[in-house]
Amino acid sequence: MGYLHAGHQSLISRARRENDLVIVSVFVNPLQFGPQEDYSRYPRDLEHDCRLAASAGADIVFAPPVEEMYPHPIRTHVDVENLGDFLCGRSRPGHFRGVCTVVCKLFNIAQPDKAYFGQKDAQQLAIIRQMVADLNIPVAVVPVPIARDSDGLALSSRNVYLTPEERSQAPVLYRSLQQAKEMFAAGERDCSRIKAELTRSISAVPGTTIDYIEITDLHTLQPVAHINASVLVALAVWFSNTRLIDNIILAEE
Amino acid sequence: MGYLHAGHQSLISRARRENDLVIVSVFVNPLQFGPQEDYSRYPRDLEHDCRLAASAGADIVFAPPVEEMYPHPIRTHVDVENLGDFLCGRSRPGHFRGVCTVVCKLFNIAQPDKAYFGQKDAQQLAIIRQMVADLNIPVAVVPVPIARDSDGLALSSRNVYLTPEERSQAPVLYRSLQQAKEMFAAGERDCSRIKAELTRSISAVPGTTIDYIEITDLHTLQPVAHINASVLVALAVWFSNTRLIDNIILAEE
Repeated sequence: MGYLHAGHQSLISRARRENDLVIVSVFVNPLQFGPQEDYSRYPRDLEHDCRLAASAGADIVFAPPVEEMYPHPIRTHVDVENLGDFLCGRSRPGHFRGVCTVVCKLFNIAQPDKAYFGQKDAQQLAIIRQMVADLNIPVAVVPVPIARDSDGLALSSRNVYLTPEERSQAPVLYRSLQQAKEMFAAGERDCSRIKAELTRSISAVPGTTIDYIEITDLHTLQPVAHINASVLVALAVWFSNTRLIDNIILAEE
Repeated sequence: MGYLHAGHQSLISRARRENDLVIVSVFVNPLQFGPQEDYSRYPRDLEHDCRLAASAGADIVFAPPVEEMYPHPIRTHVDVENLGDFLCGRSRPGHFRGVCTVVCKLFNIAQPDKAYFGQKDAQQLAIIRQMVADLNIPVAVVPVPIARDSDGLALSSRNVYLTPEERSQAPVLYRSLQQAKEMFAAGERDCSRIKAELTRSISAVPGTTIDYIEITDLHTLQPVAHINASVLVALAVWFSNTRLIDNIILAEE
């Protein structure tokens, strides 16, 4: 989606270390934005993207115009059942269908051996993995850990929308996930108690609106009530008009 | 789908002439059968298929068990909008979604340079072409003309379901399409008049039930009322419990 930052660069450097040729796609995909979403105002800066991609070791930046990706209205869609219904899918209907369709196209165009996706979009990662398995797409999906600012805020192209005040408040997301980790380490396994604690911390910040705080199975993304295997703690929170997501994996030994 | 006949062999021989390596997939795909359809009784004979494939020049027959193609219930589906709503799609909801999904899987497994599809399944061919274009699948789709018995009946694995009497009646489909061709050659461009004539011919055969007789645009499969570009004349007719399809292209100069 472009507007690259150090998070994307960590994907590129990792790919650089593990492959002979590294292609970075930069494409703000209209298919994955809802009619009320920020497609037209989504930040774009291709020159900046090319510089960051090159400095992280990319060989090629593939930045097609929309007319090249969709020369006529697209009639074919790739959809993954169930996995797209929870979490971000609830407030963004059709979003993951748009993601799957464009990723399928990009895979067919570039035919990569490996594809690097950030763990930050945990649901996207789970859905892409399911699509790759179900459709026998000949690519290895490599997850890359979330890159964070020094105060813990997950790097995101949408962070530029934040006012200075919101920017100073936003690390509450990371701190609340750390709280979840500590509760888990102390033996807490009841998801409602963990979620209540996170809700309390985040709601204490004025101007925030919680979209969701959810604890789910790592692969199926089905919400769980009690933790007895590794889980994903995922959240999405609005800071006035800006929606940020973050997550953490709680791993059972 | 297997149960190969000379029609499939014409695809294989054509592929043999134009390629270094020829793979034939034999897979009765449960995903493309409706709950009331003939999945379990669909004819199967893998040994026979292997002999016919080899004699037509195939190098490999890929005949996976269902558990290999669908190791767990599949969650990902590939669907082409609109093109699947007419003709066979009307009486077989979900059929083309099942076809697209399995063909997408087979393309990813075999990674062919070219893929040969029979013109007999004209709607399937149009849908596959749309899918390949929309998803940038790196394969050239090659259409192969319909193979027919000496009396004109289009070869089909389902012909084995016909009683001897039905078998003797079934060439009415081909004869009616020839009628359409003659009317077209004589200058007729009004689709309702052509369809009325075909309906009359086919209905005259006792025991037949017309599913559809349609004249459509060659690429979009949208029904047309008046012919002013090349069209597809397509029909589906039941002979008691057996549904046969056939079609012809009427080409404007």
